Amino acid sequence: MNKISSYLITAWTLLAIGVHGQAVHHPELQATATVNYKKVSVSYHKLYQFGHADAFVNGLYRGILPLSELKDHGDFGLGAPDLVNGELTLNNGKVYQSTADGKTTLAPDSLKTSFAMVTFFKPDLTFSIFRVKNLKDLYQQLDHYLENKNGMFAIRIKGLFDVVKTRAFPSVDKDSHVPLAQMLDKQKLFNTSKSKGVLIGYSLPAYLSGINISGFHFHFISDNMDAGGHVLEMSSAEKIIVEISELKGFLLEVPDDESFKKFPFKGSNKEDLQKVEKGY
Amino acid sequence: MNKISSYLITAWTLLAIGVHGQAVHHPELQATATVNYKKVSVSYHKLYQFGHADAFVNGLYRGILPLSELKDHGDFGLGAPDLVNGELTLNNGKVYQSTADGKTTLAPDSLKTSFAMVTFFKPDLTFSIFRVKNLKDLYQQLDHYLENKNGMFAIRIKGLFDVVKTRAFPSVDKDSHVPLAQMLDKQKLFNTSKSKGVLIGYSLPAYLSGINISGFHFHFISDNMDAGGHVLEMSSAEKIIVEISELKGFLLEVPDDESFKKFPFKGSNKEDLQKVEKGY
Repeated sequence: MNKISSYLITAWTLLAIGVHGQAVHHPELQATATVNYKKVSVSYHKLYQFGHADAFVNGLYRGILPLSELKDHGDFGLGAPDLVNGELTLNNGKVYQSTADGKTTLAPDSLKTSFAMVTFFKPDLTFSIFRVKNLKDLYQQLDHYLENKNGMFAIRIKGLFDVVKTRAFPSVDKDSHVPLAQMLDKQKLFNTSKSKGVLIGYSLPAYLSGINISGFHFHFISDNMDAGGHVLEMSSAEKIIVEISELKGFLLEVPDDESFKKFPFKGSNKEDLQKVEKGY
Repeated sequence: MNKISSYLITAWTLLAIGVHGQAVHHPELQATATVNYKKVSVSYHKLYQFGHADAFVNGLYRGILPLSELKDHGDFGLGAPDLVNGELTLNNGKVYQSTADGKTTLAPDSLKTSFAMVTFFKPDLTFSIFRVKNLKDLYQQLDHYLENKNGMFAIRIKGLFDVVKTRAFPSVDKDSHVPLAQMLDKQKLFNTSKSKGVLIGYSLPAYLSGINISGFHFHFISDNMDAGGHVLEMSSAEKIIVEISELKGFLLEVPDDESFKKFPFKGSNKEDLQKVEKGY
């Protein structure tokens, strides 16, 4: 823990230096940053979350944090666009928006998110899985590698997928606060076939249920951007490459607006969270 | 939110610069730090937590994080010493340990904590309360000032207190994992009389229950260090000074050891948390 804490702080230094244009153009500071950079291979192992899952699935759909600022906290992750208009997926610093019309596009920096989780992704462990039957089988196989049962993990899986079933919610009215679990009939479902792409997601511990969603949670982006969204199921895949990064710190920021301040948290709402995650 | 995020990152830069001896002695970097320092008056508004409340009250008592490292994250706050040996209170960068023998001493930097929450304290709001009848009355009066019902607040209250009832748990055996709620008969109770001192604590939102304790939570330290501990009750106080700082980010780090990794989280355990908080 000692070293990790110290490394994490160093990492924040680097991020801050990177983020603040003024500092970047200061040659001495940049030189120091480079020196620090070499020391901090574990420093990326952090989960940044904006917003609160219980609040999001129960109607706080308005985007608050611009993607330009979300990207200061990670180059990899998941999120929800302003007014639920589809699904967001971050990979290699790019933010993809998969909408209910079946399109996946690069989202503009000005787009705001209501709920997102991101990481600067640096895998601890990379391996291949020879054969996967379906999503449940994938999860069971991944579980063998996630030794810390209360750990937080960012997971990236690349490969050729036979079928990936994804969903995207259509945009909601700006005054709508109908819970997502009551709008499952509005989600649009897609079956991508023989799709080369990447699953981006997390496995989170039970103790984050409510604030986030415990267990596995993946979005998909095809390499040619013809498919994407929240993953509900997959059929077989072969020779997929799995990269896992265990995360050592969790930074939560919540919206600084009246709707969040007044949101009536009723304790955990695991059933609704699970319904939304699974799509039924 | 935009500005706050940016300020928070700048703050971490400063902390990191302060923490790393090498960087501090680099004149260019130090100069830049000073420049940044002036910009970031809101950057202290962050809650750092080490450990997990549910895990702590259910037996994970072994100290993991040295106070020397805890203090990198705050100069104000609360915590539990290694093996529950009393209570920790941070104020103005000093860490006080109030033990079951009734003594309050400065805790050594080498002491480790199993569970702690700290903040670099900078009040947004300072005011006096003319008269307080008891702890419940204090909480009701404070509630008028905590407008954000889902907010996180660090609170410091200075004054002359007629009676403060505190408790401290004795040290537990290193192999003991008996839940704290089953050890309430072992806590030592103290009634300080006409004591000048400071209440140090937090008000946390319902959505952090389990990970931490929702509602108010205070420790007490008398100015002459003859009394201290977890606050269970107080009788009247007059002309107390209240300082409140609303916190905008929550950074959680959990122990990187086997006992935490295998801890069987059973979902929230609010009753036991409340019992331990209230002392009965």
